[in-house]
Amino acid sequence: MPPASSPPAVKIQAPKGTRDFYPADMAWHMHLLDAWRAVSVRNGFEQVDGPIFETLELYKVKSGEGIVSELFSFRRTGGETDFAIRPEFTPTLARMVADKANALPKPIKWFATPNFCRAERPQRGRLREFWQWNVDLLGLDTPAADAEVIFTCVDLLAELGLDSTQVRVKISHRAVVKQVLEKLGVPEDKLPGAFTLLDKRDKMTPDEFTKEAGKLGLDEARVQRFEEVCRRKYASGDLMHLARSLAMDEPPEDLVKLDEQLRAFGLADWCEYDLGIVRGLAYYTGVVFEVHEATGVERAIAGGGRYDQLIELFGGPAMPAVGFGMGDVVLSNVLADKGLIPDDVGPRPDAFVLAASDEAAAQLPAVVSELRRAGLHARMSYKATRNVGKLLKDATNCGAKFAVIVGEQIEVKNLETGDQSAVGRDALLDALR
Amino acid sequence: MPPASSPPAVKIQAPKGTRDFYPADMAWHMHLLDAWRAVSVRNGFEQVDGPIFETLELYKVKSGEGIVSELFSFRRTGGETDFAIRPEFTPTLARMVADKANALPKPIKWFATPNFCRAERPQRGRLREFWQWNVDLLGLDTPAADAEVIFTCVDLLAELGLDSTQVRVKISHRAVVKQVLEKLGVPEDKLPGAFTLLDKRDKMTPDEFTKEAGKLGLDEARVQRFEEVCRRKYASGDLMHLARSLAMDEPPEDLVKLDEQLRAFGLADWCEYDLGIVRGLAYYTGVVFEVHEATGVERAIAGGGRYDQLIELFGGPAMPAVGFGMGDVVLSNVLADKGLIPDDVGPRPDAFVLAASDEAAAQLPAVVSELRRAGLHARMSYKATRNVGKLLKDATNCGAKFAVIVGEQIEVKNLETGDQSAVGRDALLDALR
Repeated sequence: MPPASSPPAVKIQAPKGTRDFYPADMAWHMHLLDAWRAVSVRNGFEQVDGPIFETLELYKVKSGEGIVSELFSFRRTGGETDFAIRPEFTPTLARMVADKANALPKPIKWFATPNFCRAERPQRGRLREFWQWNVDLLGLDTPAADAEVIFTCVDLLAELGLDSTQVRVKISHRAVVKQVLEKLGVPEDKLPGAFTLLDKRDKMTPDEFTKEAGKLGLDEARVQRFEEVCRRKYASGDLMHLARSLAMDEPPEDLVKLDEQLRAFGLADWCEYDLGIVRGLAYYTGVVFEVHEATGVERAIAGGGRYDQLIELFGGPAMPAVGFGMGDVVLSNVLADKGLIPDDVGPRPDAFVLAASDEAAAQLPAVVSELRRAGLHARMSYKATRNVGKLLKDATNCGAKFAVIVGEQIEVKNLETGDQSAVGRDALLDALR
Repeated sequence: MPPASSPPAVKIQAPKGTRDFYPADMAWHMHLLDAWRAVSVRNGFEQVDGPIFETLELYKVKSGEGIVSELFSFRRTGGETDFAIRPEFTPTLARMVADKANALPKPIKWFATPNFCRAERPQRGRLREFWQWNVDLLGLDTPAADAEVIFTCVDLLAELGLDSTQVRVKISHRAVVKQVLEKLGVPEDKLPGAFTLLDKRDKMTPDEFTKEAGKLGLDEARVQRFEEVCRRKYASGDLMHLARSLAMDEPPEDLVKLDEQLRAFGLADWCEYDLGIVRGLAYYTGVVFEVHEATGVERAIAGGGRYDQLIELFGGPAMPAVGFGMGDVVLSNVLADKGLIPDDVGPRPDAFVLAASDEAAAQLPAVVSELRRAGLHARMSYKATRNVGKLLKDATNCGAKFAVIVGEQIEVKNLETGDQSAVGRDALLDALR
């Protein structure tokens, strides 16, 4: 039968904002996913996942109708349900927790490394398909839980070679910001406006900021203090500084307790308080944090916080929760900028098997299959040449530890030391282990 | 600010035919994906991946308009391009190979473990979202390449505990079937009809089969021989049997060469020739094979073959190719039926850290974070109780190797042997390693 269709006149392209992972790209991609997984597991989180698409309704629960334009949504011909490719994991997680809340042992410590799609204009750090590490701890309302989640995030950054001079965890706390705003004299009804102003401050000139801050009913001295508080960073362990700049006698209690836990987890060097960090206003209820490259280049590497009311919103019981997401695109950009993407993250062959003669070539399948069944990563030469020197170069080029030269006898060459010796057929496996 | 939307009146469900992977399900899922990856790597394949959605056009190249009703397709509001969630990997692979064919070292040995979506009615062994292992070897047209790909498939089956009495690799060859049909007297113009009949034979009664076979211009004796040939299985190494039942002097050359290579890879026990295996008629050009549970329950565990013309169809150069796909759903069903899904595939903690007093509890973050930073999988107790006996039960229940009891001193209890001893704070890491 003929092919179903004629060859396309032009090659078909991948959709805009998506990536093809050829072997070298994929080696790094898997290195990242493996690191996310290993760090999650050693921090006691269990892996979960959900469907690549969900009902569109699920995404409206948390984000309202506004989310719809950012989604790749669809409806089956003749169907009645709208679906969307997942743009984030939290609604799936909330649905899963709400569905089995009573049966799940507490606390719930879950992680996931799913891919997401958003119908945004592709730009640096933001693609239409990306992967994101999600870490969530549910069922605990203590600052120790907040700190453990932040520790897990930092553990990953350190695992990939970043240090506390290169990246910073910027922490804020909704209750503390509210307290600070009240202390400054922002009236209750102007608090939402003040939060919005905080959220937009990096996109405004100082003049614009002052003008907008004035609308909140603050006099000039208070606007200045507001600006100072939300632009200045305060070190972990130095909360009195924050208190002084707010003319408070003591730092806010919520921050004191959080700081104590961050220091208990050894995170003081990585963290700073930045009350200008706001994130999703409707969503977070306590601590919020973002990880940024220290000099401020790139978008946020990670972001998260406490969301104690979300599980209820999805029909589950009241359940405190804290978590974060870290995307692969910005993280990889930052690591590349710092020279922290090694070019040898792919799997390294244990053996490269080659034939010194045509007769020997007939033995390659048996030799290679024995090694592979025993768990060794064994590659073989597919070339017609029997020039051992040339074939040994191929062995070296693929990074193999040993070359296995099959001829009248079998010789094993250690490609690191250059040592070469004959081994019996039965002793080959042991010689390579 | 208020939540974006009121709580849903009823809990929102996952889309039909998709799965939520809670921790126990996910542990098995990752075990499977890890096995696919490990076996691929040790057989010298490199991992690749592509976008979760592609242009709808891409899927029509190989499968024509008929594929569209099986896809979850969508178009952005105001956009001009139709997209679809990927239903298979081959079009993406062909696009990627065609795009960089000249730059890629040959042979190309790629594997992928992507998820796919098909808008089919969910049923046993067939879900709307599933994962599939794809293994492809491009650039070699030898039967050794066919055999190596089949070896990789069998290596995975053996890795997961299946043996050659439980699953069978059923092999056919397009050229051989054509030769057999010609030998039986099927005229050239009736060959497509004969292939279609082969494809449908399992869904027909013997009478229906005879009637349809008669339409191919075969007399009764030949219909009988046709039926015999396509229903009977022939063992690897026993091709003369096949030749005799076809009244041929010698078995077909293509099968002789393939059989030689299958035996060289040690696959004789796993393989049998079954000329009734047809698969996609338009797509495959040589060897085709399927892996089935030996007694015939369940759908095919894996299927593949040689597709030497596909890369050209996608705008690339002429390039021979052979590969297969193996889905996670049928494979898991077969493994479950055989009792080959262990319940302890999840990661096992190295240590479970607990506090014997409230003072000690304040030290847990420091102890746990030290262990985790050193790469150990360390869990901790979140309970308020200081009853060491109860907490030790939690340690045992989570499968930890050691319990670390933090009190006035630190004690380490080996949960396998029951041995318990005090260790200095500085010696803790060494004691656990």
